[in-house]
Amino acid sequence: MELIIPRWVAPVVPDGVILSDHAVALEHGRIVALAPAVQAREAWPQATVTELPGHLLVPGFVNLHTHAPMSLLRGAGDDMPLQAWLRERIWPLEAKLMGPEFVADGTVLACAEMLMGGITCFNDMYFHPEAVAEAALDMGMRAAVGIIVVEFPSSYGSGPADYIRKGLEMRDRLRDEPRLSFTLSPHAPYTVSDDSLRRVSSLAAELGLPVQCHVHETAGEITDSLAEHRRRPLQRLADLGLLGPEFIAIHAVHLDEADIALLARHGASVAHCPHSNLKLASGIAPTTRLMTAGVNLGVGTDGAASNNRLDLLSEARTAALLAKGSSGDATVWSAHQTLHAMTLGGARALGLGARIGSIEPGKQADLTAVDLADPLSQPVFDPVAHLIHAAGREQVTHVWIDGQLVVRARQLHAERAQLRLAEMRGRARLWHNRVVDTLPAGVRHPGG
Amino acid sequence: MELIIPRWVAPVVPDGVILSDHAVALEHGRIVALAPAVQAREAWPQATVTELPGHLLVPGFVNLHTHAPMSLLRGAGDDMPLQAWLRERIWPLEAKLMGPEFVADGTVLACAEMLMGGITCFNDMYFHPEAVAEAALDMGMRAAVGIIVVEFPSSYGSGPADYIRKGLEMRDRLRDEPRLSFTLSPHAPYTVSDDSLRRVSSLAAELGLPVQCHVHETAGEITDSLAEHRRRPLQRLADLGLLGPEFIAIHAVHLDEADIALLARHGASVAHCPHSNLKLASGIAPTTRLMTAGVNLGVGTDGAASNNRLDLLSEARTAALLAKGSSGDATVWSAHQTLHAMTLGGARALGLGARIGSIEPGKQADLTAVDLADPLSQPVFDPVAHLIHAAGREQVTHVWIDGQLVVRARQLHAERAQLRLAEMRGRARLWHNRVVDTLPAGVRHPGG
Repeated sequence: MELIIPRWVAPVVPDGVILSDHAVALEHGRIVALAPAVQAREAWPQATVTELPGHLLVPGFVNLHTHAPMSLLRGAGDDMPLQAWLRERIWPLEAKLMGPEFVADGTVLACAEMLMGGITCFNDMYFHPEAVAEAALDMGMRAAVGIIVVEFPSSYGSGPADYIRKGLEMRDRLRDEPRLSFTLSPHAPYTVSDDSLRRVSSLAAELGLPVQCHVHETAGEITDSLAEHRRRPLQRLADLGLLGPEFIAIHAVHLDEADIALLARHGASVAHCPHSNLKLASGIAPTTRLMTAGVNLGVGTDGAASNNRLDLLSEARTAALLAKGSSGDATVWSAHQTLHAMTLGGARALGLGARIGSIEPGKQADLTAVDLADPLSQPVFDPVAHLIHAAGREQVTHVWIDGQLVVRARQLHAERAQLRLAEMRGRARLWHNRVVDTLPAGVRHPGG
Repeated sequence: MELIIPRWVAPVVPDGVILSDHAVALEHGRIVALAPAVQAREAWPQATVTELPGHLLVPGFVNLHTHAPMSLLRGAGDDMPLQAWLRERIWPLEAKLMGPEFVADGTVLACAEMLMGGITCFNDMYFHPEAVAEAALDMGMRAAVGIIVVEFPSSYGSGPADYIRKGLEMRDRLRDEPRLSFTLSPHAPYTVSDDSLRRVSSLAAELGLPVQCHVHETAGEITDSLAEHRRRPLQRLADLGLLGPEFIAIHAVHLDEADIALLARHGASVAHCPHSNLKLASGIAPTTRLMTAGVNLGVGTDGAASNNRLDLLSEARTAALLAKGSSGDATVWSAHQTLHAMTLGGARALGLGARIGSIEPGKQADLTAVDLADPLSQPVFDPVAHLIHAAGREQVTHVWIDGQLVVRARQLHAERAQLRLAEMRGRARLWHNRVVDTLPAGVRHPGG
């Protein structure tokens, strides 16, 4: 039995609550109680106590969309629009470099960055997903691993049937890992055929897996779909049976009222990735209208090649600011709504809403502590507002997953994770050099 | 003589350059050379050498718009639109609390935060500006201090004539301080009369001072001006003689083509404050169109009551992302253009472009070093892109102003600054309690 006694707890459920002088009691990886600190100390006098007298304790952040391995391509293609960035820079680099080692190494770096920033769970989509899964386990992180489906071949497989077969084998092998879950991950409407999407739809129904797909990311994607399929991409996915409460629309930037109604009617979720959408000039997602329509919203960083920082706190801050600025209503995306999106919103989208995403008895103890006692953080009026609008991820001091400390005093705590990260010092240099050697002639980077 | 030898130098001038293995040579507070490290070591074998083998060295950041004392009101009014936020929250709090002590204490906190984040110069507008100036000097920071002009009375003065008289007295007393400069600071077109604006215009011409004014921040401000003055605010300021190369348009969110042409024709600058503009739902400034028109752009955090983080690095990152996302062009606001805006762009707006804002021989040595050697920052392809899009202010390790170390190993370096900040631990608590006692009934904050 362990008690964590922070200055404040923001449990996310009930909505908008901030508790002072409360203890979170943990046992066997779960939250067993949230009670006034005095009562908790009396009830469990033998418990180990972690006192955090200047901290806000919140549920661990859920990064609802990323491509973790792409941390090795961070900054390898900046100031480029989405299609040029993909076709001229990222895909050629991936064609040359991608394999299980690239994926494992990139995921180690990404997990280290995410953990230190208070993220306890990430939802990934990439090739060689078993390498993502194994690196995440090494780093002690909770992950939803994507069974990728895409029409074109890669070092990972020959095409959609091969990707699905390998993905399902991975799931069979790893399904008893308590920190892993799985999604079916058709890459995008413009890279997956109707036949493959139908196969995904029937598998999702059969296996009860969430389905995630990049969708309505750019205006061009919609124009192309209208020309080729005579339907907007979301309508095509709906017609193929993919929309439902288990569907995660990634990006969902260009949405008309019918698109929003379609998502709401199916109980689907949106993975909102504001930095990536801005950086690639995709646009600004209508998150306030989505929220009003009752669509569940989570926040994602996207991969480090298009962000370039796997920092859910700054991502969520931008989500809130952008919603206010683009809707013209300063009251939308309140600090508490923002915290909800980056925790329970993400967890629900992944079908994990009953296990993580809030500080409630019975849930797994995925927790993040943020130090607000620094003189530069004074005064604090509302600690949740302070978290969202003033704090930085560098103020995250402690992170627990399943009740185990994974970050302590701003450092990775588990020996295995420390070792994996230490190995990356040399390996990142190797990948740097391979990327530079692979870049097209004329592209020169002064780094390294 | 001192040599700083970082891994990379981004001098800002010439544009887009990144130098490896170069030394910056300092003497008597100035940059005397920027040369290959080997040559510099040979030329000055007796020099003190600071080696920063994993760092990017850039010009100190210039925060082109803030109200430093408002750090004491950080988070005291979130999720509110501009006019309600001003009239129902901020102005009533200021009416009760503001005075030289409030201003001095808030400025100490703000300076500490800004320095640790790599900001070496800030442009302020607030009441009791001599308290801002003295606190900035105590903290060792370069500041442009506003001679505020506003029609309504405050604890600082009875009205515009009194504010101008006191402001000019302050300037007379402090004008020999090398780290201080001064601006004439009419608050906004809707809070300053034509008579007062005419007086500002003639003073600016007489004294050669920059003029800064919040302008075109909200759509409502323009509608009101059309009703009351039959002109848009910028046209009214132009008619009153305020526009010119020394004019800084703060916010400048709602601009039509004629407004942009007016600013360009007069050689005016814009202080772009994206976080504040989004948070108060003011809107998104057309910075790409301003840049294309040739208007000089700087970046400002605004005060901590509307941001809530005096972090120019994240502010500039948002400026770049927002420009890309709102213009639909991913190539605008490149990382180098962004670094220019947050350094030389701000310096030029303040009339300090010949003294600071770039790493060039003859300029004052205002420098910021950012650690990019952390394993989580690997790989680095373009260090300037990495600075803008991936780094956080927590990676700022060293800051120099006039060649003096003000931040070293991520801590304030000067004893006086350390003492002033240490005093704030208790004083911030007092201000917190006074703010809470002053908040309207029904507004409850759980913090403190």
